[in-house]
Formats: sequence, structure tokens, C-alpha cells
Amino acid sequence: HRSKLPDVGPTIFSVMSSLAQDQHALNLSQGFPNFESDQKLIDLVNSAMNSGHNQYAPMAGIMELRVAIAHKFEQLYNTSYHPESEITVTAGATQAIFTIISAFIKQDDEVIIFRPAYDCYEPAVELNGGKVISVQLEAPTYKVNWDEVKRIITYKTKMIIINTPQNPSGTVFSKEDMSTLEDLLRGTSIILLSDEVYEHIIFDGEQHQSACLYPDLKARSFVVASFGKTFHNTGWKMGYCCAPKALMAEFQKVHQFNVFCVNHPIQKALAEYLKEPDHYLGLSSFYQKKRDLFLSLIETSRFKFTPAQGTYFQVLDYSAITSENDLDFAKRLTKEHKIASIPLSVFNTHHLDNKVLRFCLAKTDDTLKQAADILNKI
Amino acid sequence: HRSKLPDVGPTIFSVMSSLAQDQHALNLSQGFPNFESDQKLIDLVNSAMNSGHNQYAPMAGIMELRVAIAHKFEQLYNTSYHPESEITVTAGATQAIFTIISAFIKQDDEVIIFRPAYDCYEPAVELNGGKVISVQLEAPTYKVNWDEVKRIITYKTKMIIINTPQNPSGTVFSKEDMSTLEDLLRGTSIILLSDEVYEHIIFDGEQHQSACLYPDLKARSFVVASFGKTFHNTGWKMGYCCAPKALMAEFQKVHQFNVFCVNHPIQKALAEYLKEPDHYLGLSSFYQKKRDLFLSLIETSRFKFTPAQGTYFQVLDYSAITSENDLDFAKRLTKEHKIASIPLSVFNTHHLDNKVLRFCLAKTDDTLKQAADILNKI
Ligand SMILES: CSCCC(=O)C(=O)O
Ligand SMILES: CSCCC(=O)C(=O)O
Repeated sequence: HRSKLPDVGPTIFSVMSSLAQDQHALNLSQGFPNFESDQKLIDLVNSAMNSGHNQYAPMAGIMELRVAIAHKFEQLYNTSYHPESEITVTAGATQAIFTIISAFIKQDDEVIIFRPAYDCYEPAVELNGGKVISVQLEAPTYKVNWDEVKRIITYKTKMIIINTPQNPSGTVFSKEDMSTLEDLLRGTSIILLSDEVYEHIIFDGEQHQSACLYPDLKARSFVVASFGKTFHNTGWKMGYCCAPKALMAEFQKVHQFNVFCVNHPIQKALAEYLKEPDHYLGLSSFYQKKRDLFLSLIETSRFKFTPAQGTYFQVLDYSAITSENDLDFAKRLTKEHKIASIPLSVFNTHHLDNKVLRFCLAKTDDTLKQAADILNKI
Repeated sequence: HRSKLPDVGPTIFSVMSSLAQDQHALNLSQGFPNFESDQKLIDLVNSAMNSGHNQYAPMAGIMELRVAIAHKFEQLYNTSYHPESEITVTAGATQAIFTIISAFIKQDDEVIIFRPAYDCYEPAVELNGGKVISVQLEAPTYKVNWDEVKRIITYKTKMIIINTPQNPSGTVFSKEDMSTLEDLLRGTSIILLSDEVYEHIIFDGEQHQSACLYPDLKARSFVVASFGKTFHNTGWKMGYCCAPKALMAEFQKVHQFNVFCVNHPIQKALAEYLKEPDHYLGLSSFYQKKRDLFLSLIETSRFKFTPAQGTYFQVLDYSAITSENDLDFAKRLTKEHKIASIPLSVFNTHHLDNKVLRFCLAKTDDTLKQAADILNKI
């Protein structure tokens, strides 16, 4: 059988996490916390299981959770999505993204992405016969040249995928970025897939620029969000997406035959837990403290950095240390120095020679200190 | 935007379950138990959440669960799948099926299915540009004419989907069916997708004929299974599939970008729970008692039936009652008689005039008695 994805291997996350495990290395590669989710939330899931919420949820999610999500959008972004027809709960943000792409991308459609880009976009586009058109962003600012974007938009452009705060670079889109994008797309029928899974992790007093804040973006956008990243339980695999009714109707045609619905007891628990804004409003300062701690500890190391503006990732430039390529260096760090990271080149089309590794800071302060100790010796 | 699935509406399960709820009707439509999952299993999930299993599981599933699944195949079917490379845990059987089809079906590929067919196969094929070729089976025996199958296999046939025990008809494939299929496929490169989610629900002393029991089928098959159907927790959305290494490698290329991995604490719990074969070996007799109870209670009603050979569904012929089509009749039963079922025509390409409804028997004996009381008055 000829493969539909001939060039795809295991994700870098599987590769580096299992190498970290084999090597008994500190695992700052794959993005997940090494601390626990709130006991209160765990207890809510247990209560839901013990009070008869163990059979299929409605296809789009339980109404109570969709209402809580709509409420969050009202409170945080002063914008509304109808729980009835504009919100779907998904098996993690990844399933939302895969389903959006599957629902809309047809043979020869073009999809614009910004590189370095999270690695699930391109294979999904390719699987559906679409073509990825990349805009390369350059370290350390990773700023978008919107004129370039304008130039590569054609009548074939079906979708643009943005990701702010951005994984892996830790950069965020400004108001100006979003307004420029809004101007650019006005009058087109291009769909915007706005991956906002790190919406609650943004630093130095900046505000997250959700696509839903810009009317002419909102009208064409899927906004994708993650519970795992927000509530420290990436292994529960819960997320959601919002879009105007007509777009959501097409999404649900595919969603219902991909997973039908998602975990019921966890939905019940999240519906309750999400009602309390304190459960996510403190997240930025929680992670900013970790970023600041980590960066202050490695300030005198040979790694260079620009502080991440958001996400729980920090990229470090190792060009002062070695000329090895980033995959080799990441593997060597794991084996010899017992610390695992993610090489940035895997998020780029071409294996660029930019000597940058990504470290996950969703770790206890203790782990961050151990990590810094190692990095300071390299 | 031109829809990729122009003819797809909400699944009949969403339609009938919400009608049942609005109408305060007994819901024997969508297939899920109205009794609880084992407290022991619920407690195992709670323990897993409380002992730090809340972050990403490995992409294919935790090894402990894959080993337990492999062990089940050894014990039950005396055949082996390698936990390392031939088993993947999925977000329900539906996600396994969607992913298998997405991983292999390309433009113009033909996929043979048997109708009445569960409703998630066709849209997944269509979404990937494939073409469904239907073999129509007729009530009440729903027997396959294998000569017909032989006639419609062409060089374009990429996949055949079977489902035994079969939803919605409740019929099962015999040894002879499977051997004939094995002979038919020998020497071809056709993939078999064997949907076996009701493997543990088979009546009257019959043995489930898993595709993995037939070497020349196993070598080309994905065997798809469900925890929800077996352990009475359809809302946990957990399933798995097994296939030879080369096929599974292609599956995982798509799986890792569709959901990446599935719920970690539930995997941990299932790994423990699955080790005890008693947790599934009693299921056939459990459901046979329900089938026998229900059928004995409606014996003198105006509905005609052939007892289901497997699954937790029973189809009833209402031709002696009305000439209404089955969708109208199912809706009227829900509104006027307060009992919801599934019209069989939705599982057929053409709305056949076969006057058959499907009732879900995964209900307490009390509910089944109430259902029979209603049906006896019609
Ligand atoms: C789905 S595993 C990858 C987790 C993640 O978001 C990351 O490490 O970037
Ligand atoms: C995914 S909802 C449908 C459940 C089911 O398997 C059925 O009712 O046939």
C-alpha cells in the first residue's frame, strides 16, 4: 500500500520523551506539567463517575459545559458564542484541529502556516490532499512580515493557521498583527484556524489577542482551546473549539464520525470547575514566575535567550556552545547531560541551521533548578 | 464553502436520543446501558487520577494496557499481537474506524460495506474521496451472498468493512462466512476492517468469529474493539485496534495527529481491570437473559422478530401494525407511546420499505418490562 503520509515518522514528542525515559533524563521536551492537577477537579471527576455520568455525552458536549465555555468567552473577551450551535467539546485540541482541517481541506487547497509551526497541522493538510504554504519566521523575534503573507495568498488559499501564544517560539501576536490579518482577510472566504491553547499563559502584562476579539476574524474563525494546558492534566485529552454556526455545522459533520462525543464524566467535572475564573486567571503569573526563575538561573550560562512572551516553553540559542545540528545536540544533551528538550528544526520545513532548542517550563521549581544546574555546566 | 459531506446531517442517534429526552420517552434508541459500570472500575480510575497518571500517555497507549489487550487475544483467540507495534488504544472504536479509513482510503478507492451498516463508515470513506460499494442484506436473516461480493470486487477495491456481531441487525458471521471471505481475499491486497465491538455479546452458545482467528484475514485486518460496550461505560470513549505491524504503522501516522493519545487515568484503570477475564466472559449470558426476557414478554404482541444472535440490539418487524415508513413510525412511537427506537432505513442506502425498528436491550429488566408493556399495547 502506498502510504498517504510517506514522509511522516513518529512525532518528535514521542521520540524525545521515550529517549528521556530510557536515559533517566530530566524531561523538558514534550509539553506537560510534572506537577498535579487540582485535587478539587480530580474529585469532581470522581463524583461525576459515581453519580451516573458514564454513558455517551451529546455529540457536541454536555450543555452545562458548553454554557460554561460561552460564559468564559463573555467574561474574558466580551464576545458570545451560542452554546447550542457554536461550541464543540473535543478529545483535546489536537482532535479539534485535525477535524477542522478534515472538514474543510480538499484536493489542491492551500493552507498558510507560520514556521516554526506545531507539528500536527501539516500532516492533516497533506492527508486531505491540501498543500501547505509556509511563511518562515526568524529567531529571535519570529515577527510576521504581513506583506509576505499578502503576496502568497491566492485564489487557492482556503485556510490560514495561526497560533498565539506560539508553540514552540513562545512569541505572541500583537493587536497590530491581528488587525493587519483582519484587514488582509476581509472580503475573502479564507477560514482562520486560530490555535489558542496557551491563551491563559501570557506574560509581562500583555493581553491575549484572541481571534474572537476581531469581528471580521471571528466571523471566519475556529478558535481552538485546551483544558489540559490550562488545568494541568494533558492526559485527560479535553479541549474545545468555537466557530460561527455555519462553520461549526460542517465541523460537526466530521466530528460525529471521528469520535462521536468525548469523555462524559470529565465534561461534567469541567463544567463545574470552569465556572470559577480564578481557576485560570492566575495561570499567567504562575508560569511567569517559573519563566523568570529559570531564566535568572541560566543568565550566566552559554545559552542565549529572549524571554518567552507566552506558553510554557522557552527557546534557548546554543550557537555559542557547538555547531552540531539541533537534533543531534538535543539527543546528546539527553544522553550525556541527562536533560531532554525539543530541537526546533522539526517545526521548520527545512532543517534550518538556527541552533535553537525548546525547553518546557511546566515543571516544579525544583526540576527547573536541576535543569538550570545542568545547563550552566554545558 | 462547498461542503465535503453535503448529504450528511446529525446522526440518527443524536436525533432520536434528543427526541426521547424531549418527549420523556423510554430511550431504547441510541445504544448505551441505563445501568452503571462496575464500582471497582470507577474506583480504579479514581486511584489512577490520585496517583499521578494525569499527563499524556504514550501515543499508542500505556504499555501495561497494550500488554493486557495482547493477553486477552492470547487467551480468547489463541493468537498474538505485539504490544510494541500492533496495538493502539483509541478514543472509542469510532475514532479507530475513522482513523483507519483516513489512513488508507484515497481518491477513487472502493470500499465494500454490508447494509444495513453502522452509520460512521460511509461518511469517513466519502470524506477521503473513496466510494462506498454496498452489498444489501435482507431481513430477517441478513445473510451474505458471497458470490455477489466476489462479483463486485474490482482492482479498485481497497477495503472491505465487516461487523460481527452486527449492529443494527443483531446477526453474526459464521465460520463459513469467515472462511469464504478468507478464500475470496487470499492473494489480493484488500484491507479488512473488522468492527468487532460486540465480540463479547454473542448468544445461544455460538463463538465469536474474530478476523484474527483466520490467518489470511488477520494478515490484512484491523480488528476494532470497544471498552465502552464491554464494561458499560460508553461515555468514557475508550477502544482499541490491532493490526499487523506494517498496517499499524500507517494507522499511527494518522492517529498521532488526530488525537495524539487517549485518556491516561482510564487506560491505567482498564489495564488492571482487563486482566480479569471474568470481567467480560459473563457478558454474553448477561445480555442473553435480557434478550430472552424481552422477547418472551412481547411474544404475543403484533411485532414479529427473529431473536438477535448477538449485540445488545433487537430488531422488530412492525409490518402487521402500520404501513408508515420506519422513520415516521419511530418518531410517532416516541411521541405518542413514549418509547424511542432506531429506524433501520438510516443504515441502508435507499430508504427500503422493510418496516423494521431497532431496540436497545442494554437496559435494566425493569425498563425492558416497561418497554414490553408499551409494545404489547400497540
Ligand atoms: C501531543 S504531545 C506534544 C505536547 C505539546 O503540545 C508540545 O510539547 O508541544
Ligand atoms: C455513537 S452513538 C451510537 C451508539 C451505538 O453504537 C448505536 O446506537 O448503534
